[in-house]
Amino acid sequence: MGPHLVIVHSGAGFCRDAAVPAIRSLCTDICSETLKKLSDGSNAMEAVCMAIALLEDSPLTNAGRGSNLTREGEVECDASVMDGTSGRFGACGAVSGIEHPVYLARAVFDYQQTHRQNALGLVPPMLLVGQGAWKFALKEGVDTVPPESLITPASQRRFERITARFTALEASSEVAVPSSDADQAVDHNLEDEENDSMALDTVGAIAVDTLGNVAVASSSGGLQFKHSGRVGQAAIYGAGIWSETDDGDTYACCTSGTGEQLIETDLARQLCRSLIQEGPFEIASTVQKNFLRGGSADVSSPRYMGALLLQVSDWQKTGRAFVQVLHTTPTFCWAYASSKQEKTKVGLLYRCSEIVIYA
Amino acid sequence: MGPHLVIVHSGAGFCRDAAVPAIRSLCTDICSETLKKLSDGSNAMEAVCMAIALLEDSPLTNAGRGSNLTREGEVECDASVMDGTSGRFGACGAVSGIEHPVYLARAVFDYQQTHRQNALGLVPPMLLVGQGAWKFALKEGVDTVPPESLITPASQRRFERITARFTALEASSEVAVPSSDADQAVDHNLEDEENDSMALDTVGAIAVDTLGNVAVASSSGGLQFKHSGRVGQAAIYGAGIWSETDDGDTYACCTSGTGEQLIETDLARQLCRSLIQEGPFEIASTVQKNFLRGGSADVSSPRYMGALLLQVSDWQKTGRAFVQVLHTTPTFCWAYASSKQEKTKVGLLYRCSEIVIYA
Repeated sequence: MGPHLVIVHSGAGFCRDAAVPAIRSLCTDICSETLKKLSDGSNAMEAVCMAIALLEDSPLTNAGRGSNLTREGEVECDASVMDGTSGRFGACGAVSGIEHPVYLARAVFDYQQTHRQNALGLVPPMLLVGQGAWKFALKEGVDTVPPESLITPASQRRFERITARFTALEASSEVAVPSSDADQAVDHNLEDEENDSMALDTVGAIAVDTLGNVAVASSSGGLQFKHSGRVGQAAIYGAGIWSETDDGDTYACCTSGTGEQLIETDLARQLCRSLIQEGPFEIASTVQKNFLRGGSADVSSPRYMGALLLQVSDWQKTGRAFVQVLHTTPTFCWAYASSKQEKTKVGLLYRCSEIVIYA
Repeated sequence: MGPHLVIVHSGAGFCRDAAVPAIRSLCTDICSETLKKLSDGSNAMEAVCMAIALLEDSPLTNAGRGSNLTREGEVECDASVMDGTSGRFGACGAVSGIEHPVYLARAVFDYQQTHRQNALGLVPPMLLVGQGAWKFALKEGVDTVPPESLITPASQRRFERITARFTALEASSEVAVPSSDADQAVDHNLEDEENDSMALDTVGAIAVDTLGNVAVASSSGGLQFKHSGRVGQAAIYGAGIWSETDDGDTYACCTSGTGEQLIETDLARQLCRSLIQEGPFEIASTVQKNFLRGGSADVSSPRYMGALLLQVSDWQKTGRAFVQVLHTTPTFCWAYASSKQEKTKVGLLYRCSEIVIYA
């Protein structure tokens, strides 16, 4: 039995102290369960999908059940999966009525494998969205559910509160009041007494199996009060997740935060490339340069991100993994379990920009 | 009146000799009309949107009216616009019932400008898809049409032919016959006697206005017989279009070809970056290295691309532009008009991998 490990996060955001125990337990339990799955011989892709599905099931996370609602009061999810050896990627965006969006992303991924050679020269899709994605789910046996079943009482109350605030704002002035201050968003989120996880964004997971395969996955309910049809980084190639093999080492990254900023900065791919080209000590400056000062000219918005970053070399022999955790948000919640450790390590970072784990 | 220019393409693909005159006229006429708009004082963004809307109107192109149909027999389009100064980007994906998808992409782009500062900290979307995008179009005054009005008799016949071939293939064997040969796709496309533009892919346009602003736009009906909900490069940040300003020079690129391959290789952005970092003489080798040998491990598929690439420096003083045209497909159709030339230049390249225009 070779070494194996899993690392998950439940989002970069604004987690209140009162919510910490529940988030801690959630991340710890999911890591332990996923590690067991890996010990039982599951491959890395199966493991990350299970970890994400469990995160989607929890009403505490902004993924699957309990996701933020759109302006129309509906749940629309993005998800993606990627394999570090083949570089294959599958994703779904703005999907409603899917119990586990990550399994729909996985179905798109699997379809590429089974349909990549076709006498008509048809190229299989990488990203399916909306109703078309839902129909694909039906055909491929991915579980569909009544869309409203993914709405929780807490997500409904959050939606009603923000709708009221938005309506009041629109009534008070035709010109929105500028907000260039991150603290305003923080205050806003801290108001929610009912469900402290409301501001948590995209969830993610990375796993390495006993054979050294690396897989990464991500799932998100998207930004609060987003437009219907909006697609965020969790569905976009390069932005939400990345994994590749270079010179015998395998790299993987999953990001969380403000989707449009993560898309503009191609962040998951760029963090892996930075690790490959410049090594571990330049990652924080890559975030500074590429993310905090990167992207389009709209520098007035605060820039929110969190990321898990992994490198493994000669896995089966050494079982050595390098994990880096970064964020610019007030909190970032993650947990880590490895076959070499007795207990699952769990972290919930506050205002700390970088932590490095040598596993 | 400062110098101004426009360059458009109607797709990298498999254009038959018989179709050349119509494609030539289309590209030439649109360039002339767009140049006139620029002469009349329109900015680059307005100009590229008009050029793309005219390409969408033509049943000869795979964009807007006359687009390829999905497996369900419907038109679903992708489009995007980007501005070289601000780096702002707007896109729509898998949209039905939109007369000019490029104007919907433009509406997403404009919305970012008018809604970027918001007291609730809401971040405006970059990519809207499917029904949500259609509802956004309604709200923002983008023209909607009955979805079936975008289907032409020729696109319907193409759909019926490929459906018949697909059904026959599925009936003949459960395992698809491998096709690692580009010529098969070519043969397949050459069969179409009715509408020679069927295999033409994504259309694109780049303009520089009298003030030196650069804008780029793209629009696509997507791959033939694609899955409903499939999103291709014309909607994906970095893949289909790119424009940025670096050290006083502005760069722009629009790509055409197999969307999944263009997304994997982030091609529009990478071609601009190559031009910035390595100069014009390395572009062909960037295509070789990054596109033809880049992307995921699925090297059995032929790799199809075409691109327009532009660099302008000190525009108002010198009016000097550098335009490069590249493709790996049998044909790539483009036209070019500049205020410094009397006549619109039009090209339709056959089996030629690179052409450089110094304007």
